[in-house]
Amino acid sequence: MRVAFQGEPGAYSEAAALRLIPDAETLPRGTFEEVFAAVESESATYGLLPIENSIGGSIHRNYDLLVEHTLSIVGEVELRIQHQLLALPGTQFENVRRIYSHPQALAQCERFLRSLAGVDVIATYDTAGSAKMIREQQLHDAAAIASERAAAVFELTILRSGLEDFEDNLTRFWLIGPHDMAIGPPDKTTIVFSLPNEPGALFKALSVFALRGIDLTKLESRPIRGRPWEYLFYVDLAVGQGDPRCDRALAHLAEFAHSERILGSYPAWREP
Amino acid sequence: MRVAFQGEPGAYSEAAALRLIPDAETLPRGTFEEVFAAVESESATYGLLPIENSIGGSIHRNYDLLVEHTLSIVGEVELRIQHQLLALPGTQFENVRRIYSHPQALAQCERFLRSLAGVDVIATYDTAGSAKMIREQQLHDAAAIASERAAAVFELTILRSGLEDFEDNLTRFWLIGPHDMAIGPPDKTTIVFSLPNEPGALFKALSVFALRGIDLTKLESRPIRGRPWEYLFYVDLAVGQGDPRCDRALAHLAEFAHSERILGSYPAWREP
Repeated sequence: MRVAFQGEPGAYSEAAALRLIPDAETLPRGTFEEVFAAVESESATYGLLPIENSIGGSIHRNYDLLVEHTLSIVGEVELRIQHQLLALPGTQFENVRRIYSHPQALAQCERFLRSLAGVDVIATYDTAGSAKMIREQQLHDAAAIASERAAAVFELTILRSGLEDFEDNLTRFWLIGPHDMAIGPPDKTTIVFSLPNEPGALFKALSVFALRGIDLTKLESRPIRGRPWEYLFYVDLAVGQGDPRCDRALAHLAEFAHSERILGSYPAWREP
Repeated sequence: MRVAFQGEPGAYSEAAALRLIPDAETLPRGTFEEVFAAVESESATYGLLPIENSIGGSIHRNYDLLVEHTLSIVGEVELRIQHQLLALPGTQFENVRRIYSHPQALAQCERFLRSLAGVDVIATYDTAGSAKMIREQQLHDAAAIASERAAAVFELTILRSGLEDFEDNLTRFWLIGPHDMAIGPPDKTTIVFSLPNEPGALFKALSVFALRGIDLTKLESRPIRGRPWEYLFYVDLAVGQGDPRCDRALAHLAEFAHSERILGSYPAWREP
């Protein structure tokens, strides 16, 4: 089973993929678009996408891409994010003059970074990619903020651990694949819909779930391109497709929604 | 009247500030944080923040900063975004090898950029800042995507106009300032609240507005740091503070919300 992810080996997305499917073969890809393409072309069985971090918020690009493609959400996984400061063996903490990482990771280590003097902080496209660069370019006065796994992959030393400002730093990922490839019995469903632009429309939409006692665990809105100040709403429901409450609520919503699509129904992540 | 904005002279935020307050003196600042600081220290009367683009979506950083500071939203303005390709006088379109701009602007001109061959596209922190760089570093084989005004400010030539993929490319901005400095009679109110983590909580929150016929024009959610998968909800209401419906709805919400704050009540933007 092959799972495509965005980033270099040692990326948090790769760790999340292995958490969900321990014996998976992981396929690094440069961009989120290439993760979709890998699954669509069947180079990969599944793709793994970060969708939300408990500190930084949603990864909106992936919400947009799910609507532009036909692949479904077939699984979910959470990963605790623990950032380490990585450098070439022999580099001392005192000699680090530049620190590289992804902007989200840098933002999550703000307190640590602010405590440093005379160090340049440089944003890159990737956490593990920063570790790779330090290894490949043999940067003796630089360090990367990345995962413990990235240290192992690129043979770097961990100078400092647990750099993140908040202990409860979790990222939630979705596994994407063909519609009929859910990795277990579904008890969670994600839908996207648009509504007529009239007062009370969203309240009415949420009523189809509330009046059936269906819990809504996440609501996200994204602009509809070309129709300023109109939105697509993405909703996570704590109920699986096939449950009559879910099916009736979705039929009820379709009575007045302008558009409605089920992005996937899948087993919610549970900590082992 | 001085209005601080993030960016270089010629930035879209500066144009928006002048659209709202034509005789304002504009104060460029490096970051959104520095815009808040300028108003808090009274170096500026107001600050102007981009809050949402009709193609790219919300500028979440500014939602977060509003909660971290005590300044209020005191006005609103919209600006149609029209991107131009700017270069030094004498540079021909055929000779452009690099194009610089802010990632949001680059994303909004995707179709145009994809039509080019052999040109590097480079993300920078600022549209007008890219124009400034081309002027200061005398880059004869490069161009910037920025506003018409940036062309005038940095004495650059417009090689191509209207690069944006969607004609309806609007950005909405908020004017921030001291609580009692609203720029007119309010008919719009923005609030932020958190809810008990129980089924139907958001539905119940929206009911306090729907049942009073108050239109909700925007709903945004952001994570609560340190409490994974709990959210702050930001809501724009088409009603001013002082209107009894608004005041009663907010009192009703406070009966069960965990926290509630009015970020501002201000005149909604109307195209002149």
